[in-house]
Amino acid sequence: MADTDFEKQISFIKEIDKLKYIERKTSLFNSDRHENDAEHSWHLAMMALVMSNQSNEQVDLLKVIKMLLIHDIVEIDAGDTFLFDTKKNHDNTEEELKAAKRIFGLLPEEQAEELIAIWEEFEATETAEAKFAKAMDRLAPMMQNASNDGGTWREFDVPYETVIDKKKKIKEGSAIAWDYAKGLVDDFYQK
Amino acid sequence: MADTDFEKQISFIKEIDKLKYIERKTSLFNSDRHENDAEHSWHLAMMALVMSNQSNEQVDLLKVIKMLLIHDIVEIDAGDTFLFDTKKNHDNTEEELKAAKRIFGLLPEEQAEELIAIWEEFEATETAEAKFAKAMDRLAPMMQNASNDGGTWREFDVPYETVIDKKKKIKEGSAIAWDYAKGLVDDFYQK
Repeated sequence: MADTDFEKQISFIKEIDKLKYIERKTSLFNSDRHENDAEHSWHLAMMALVMSNQSNEQVDLLKVIKMLLIHDIVEIDAGDTFLFDTKKNHDNTEEELKAAKRIFGLLPEEQAEELIAIWEEFEATETAEAKFAKAMDRLAPMMQNASNDGGTWREFDVPYETVIDKKKKIKEGSAIAWDYAKGLVDDFYQK
Repeated sequence: MADTDFEKQISFIKEIDKLKYIERKTSLFNSDRHENDAEHSWHLAMMALVMSNQSNEQVDLLKVIKMLLIHDIVEIDAGDTFLFDTKKNHDNTEEELKAAKRIFGLLPEEQAEELIAIWEEFEATETAEAKFAKAMDRLAPMMQNASNDGGTWREFDVPYETVIDKKKKIKEGSAIAWDYAKGLVDDFYQK
């Protein structure tokens, strides 16, 4: 079916439509309507676009945006992993790697390799781009929870220390974003 | 409220959450679930990411992606304009410009000016980046319609010539995408 590079790209574009059906635990701002992965990915890319000057280190913005646009595509096969899920390891799983290979593998080989490498770089969170991208991914649901009277923190009875522990990585990407994010948690748990 | 650059960026990020509520006429692939503007913008950014080598002219990919991420944000105030709406002019309206100034105006001044300029460049469709971005914006709903037994073409009884006329601009951005897109229209209307 997909012989030419163009045809392979079209196949990939059709396949990733499925990201719009992957529902997250988090809801939209001031709402109980759950967010899906495609909306979430768009919002994170927008955050990076306007906040890249808040990164601790200078970043290649195009790479950050690529990371955020693709970071959840593996969930088409592997499903959404909830950060506060105590039964499932949130780290890069075998299942997610298999998903990355299948889905990005629909693309021409060179593009598939590039996107798998960018996804792995995001998951490893060692480069400046990955640290900043991960900070955006951690920050967004905190803002949403704060607007929803605690959101998933309240819904799943997550202890204060757990939130701080799971979220403190934000500081590695953006100190100013972490100050703001920690303030949101402190405000909610003091109530 | 929003005094520092960071606070202004946070205000903007909260405001644009509303894009997730703007419903388009077009439905997801093989589905009757309508798409919203945030999902649509994510999908277009992904299309640009993997198909920029199909542009007629070489493009600055970061600029194309910025255009596609922000191109519908004005619809938060101005509402979705349907391409085949015969009563409303789809071109850049006063209402949309006012929306751009209000919403991007939440950002620090320099960023607001940059994003308004990029949005205007997209609407004018004169640069290589805008032509390619617009091609992606025109192509996506054609693929969706083709997967949905004609989708909005059938639902609104749009004549073949109107579809071709409204869509032929794709050729200016990507000749190969236009060949493919025209084939989708021809296939549907021959049935």
